[in-house]
Amino acid sequence: MRTLQLQHPKRTIFGAGCLNDLAKDRILEDSQRILLLIATPIYNAAKPTVEALRAIGKLVDVYEYTFPGEPTFHQMDEMLAHTQEFQPDCVIGIGGGSVLDCAKLLAALSNSQQKLHDVPGINILRGRKLSLICVPTTSGTGSEMSPNAILLDETTNEKKGIISPDLVPDAVYIDPALTLSLPAKLTAETGIDALCHCIEAYTNKFAHPTVDLYALQGIKLIGANLQKACQNGNDLEARTALSLGSMYGGLCLGPVNTAAVHALSYGLGGKYHISHGLANAILLPDVLLFNLPACVERTAEIALALGIPKGPDPETTALQGITKIRELCIACGIPQHLSSLGIQENDLPELAAIALNVKRLLNNNPREVRMDDALSIFTALL
Amino acid sequence: MRTLQLQHPKRTIFGAGCLNDLAKDRILEDSQRILLLIATPIYNAAKPTVEALRAIGKLVDVYEYTFPGEPTFHQMDEMLAHTQEFQPDCVIGIGGGSVLDCAKLLAALSNSQQKLHDVPGINILRGRKLSLICVPTTSGTGSEMSPNAILLDETTNEKKGIISPDLVPDAVYIDPALTLSLPAKLTAETGIDALCHCIEAYTNKFAHPTVDLYALQGIKLIGANLQKACQNGNDLEARTALSLGSMYGGLCLGPVNTAAVHALSYGLGGKYHISHGLANAILLPDVLLFNLPACVERTAEIALALGIPKGPDPETTALQGITKIRELCIACGIPQHLSSLGIQENDLPELAAIALNVKRLLNNNPREVRMDDALSIFTALL
Repeated sequence: MRTLQLQHPKRTIFGAGCLNDLAKDRILEDSQRILLLIATPIYNAAKPTVEALRAIGKLVDVYEYTFPGEPTFHQMDEMLAHTQEFQPDCVIGIGGGSVLDCAKLLAALSNSQQKLHDVPGINILRGRKLSLICVPTTSGTGSEMSPNAILLDETTNEKKGIISPDLVPDAVYIDPALTLSLPAKLTAETGIDALCHCIEAYTNKFAHPTVDLYALQGIKLIGANLQKACQNGNDLEARTALSLGSMYGGLCLGPVNTAAVHALSYGLGGKYHISHGLANAILLPDVLLFNLPACVERTAEIALALGIPKGPDPETTALQGITKIRELCIACGIPQHLSSLGIQENDLPELAAIALNVKRLLNNNPREVRMDDALSIFTALL
Repeated sequence: MRTLQLQHPKRTIFGAGCLNDLAKDRILEDSQRILLLIATPIYNAAKPTVEALRAIGKLVDVYEYTFPGEPTFHQMDEMLAHTQEFQPDCVIGIGGGSVLDCAKLLAALSNSQQKLHDVPGINILRGRKLSLICVPTTSGTGSEMSPNAILLDETTNEKKGIISPDLVPDAVYIDPALTLSLPAKLTAETGIDALCHCIEAYTNKFAHPTVDLYALQGIKLIGANLQKACQNGNDLEARTALSLGSMYGGLCLGPVNTAAVHALSYGLGGKYHISHGLANAILLPDVLLFNLPACVERTAEIALALGIPKGPDPETTALQGITKIRELCIACGIPQHLSSLGIQENDLPELAAIALNVKRLLNNNPREVRMDDALSIFTALL
């Protein structure tokens, strides 16, 4: 068993309503000035927390995150300038993956000698002086559990990853009740994204038993509950299962990370601003089919975790699992064709070229992805 | 699902040989003065690490831990006095549960305004100024993953728990190669202790899905590998599985913790100085039988995790599982009678009274343990 480094938030508080406990968090005892970065749609739900913090004498600067799509370097610079002015000693992020990625970077780069444009890459960002608490409001990115933050370079339309153990929060509050109001479309897209994290970790070239445990549990939870949550957003049991599945997906990101699905989706997000979850969801079944020859056994185990009965051989089981994932995507309203999102045939070579550049993730893929492979996958999905 | 707080070391490095990476740990970049608390038998294995630390300019004070049995308040005071003198900025503990418990307390109480005798109990100890790295050399206590430290009050022969999130280390290096030299007897006793952590968390009144995942995985790993490691100490694969199982057992301790087995063993350890693992191992099968009416389904699931085929009903399956645990204990050389350890019939009332006092753990037990229950369990084991 190869040596692996697991990274976890020091404390993860999980349960419906747990946001109400945040103001009493022990990290905040030493904080006076709190920057709260929050997604606008969730602001009302977080108001009691802001009031509770102010009632105990904390200075809270509420910064509403209103940017559409993935955060850019320029937007991040704006937020950093604002933060430098307020001089917080603690950052709290409440929102989806974009908000949390930004909150993580604000906490790490405020009062740092490193500049934003210098830190993309693995373990280049070093140190974090501010406390950091993250509260996810979607069940998808798992950003709250991971050392990753992704920004869009608006000059090149490239997505760039900033990866560092210092981006793992000190404390995380996962409150499934916050996801009840998430529309079905977003529930589906973020849910399949979380499923991707688990599946791409489990079929990863660098899969590891300690991460397999999280991955399979995430697959079980999301597979059994995503459609329920899409059909009835108020199903707290299904929402809770998705929150947990997403947490497990996030724990897969640090030590093992994703692979070809995420690499192939880079251009769809970066250049065409298709949402991260949707881009991954469209790609997932076809990439699984492409990878199958390299990981039949593991794909069959994924199928079993999705509730497929054991077939006469691993390949049959695996294929039924992939079909089940495709059916789940369709049942949750995920479009099946890139053309329906405005992508045309002559866009595909550039999309493939962008994907081939994401070596950090393609290196993890169980099967080598060449230019013609990437093109074939995109073409079949057109 | 009730709200639960999971606690993890920020980083857990797992793999045979990973101790060799410790000197390069990023926490140590900011450290100048390192106190290394180490169990004597493992000192040779850790010498290269000490040399590597000194080679990069760190001042390393090696304190060999030579106390027999569980550490006492007096011994802890001695170590604290030594530590205050050296003024380290980082504590590294390398050893079994006693060594790690002491290392955790040294890191938390050095330069603290709290005194050792004031901190027993839950969440009374607050804050830790020193960095803390733990390296387990047994597969048992799981202290490296938990917020717990246990000391023996030598004036009353009582074991006292000090529980605080600040006792969870910053980084943990779990190196199964360090356990290769552990004698079969210690392998068995510590291994069953780790199994207890998992089982008592899984049948706990406060069991939680997030902890169940760890508990069942620990049960699978320890159940399948303990006998192998006892029979052939050099079986690295079995040792690795036990290290991982013990890690999962440790992760059960913070959020859910143990129950009647550990409560009943308090007097055996405190008053008769029977090793913690051995005391638990003797008690485990009989306590499981006692608890069975209150948790048939869950005990059956434990049996399945131990490889028992599903029986005609949960009770049959559960009973076969308990028999399997008893057989495993016997195969690993665990004695089956308290009398063989010098306990006599007239000792039992006091042992039962001590156990009934450990309400912190008995409250977790799926079935209420009254005085006559405790006496019956002890009597049957005499």
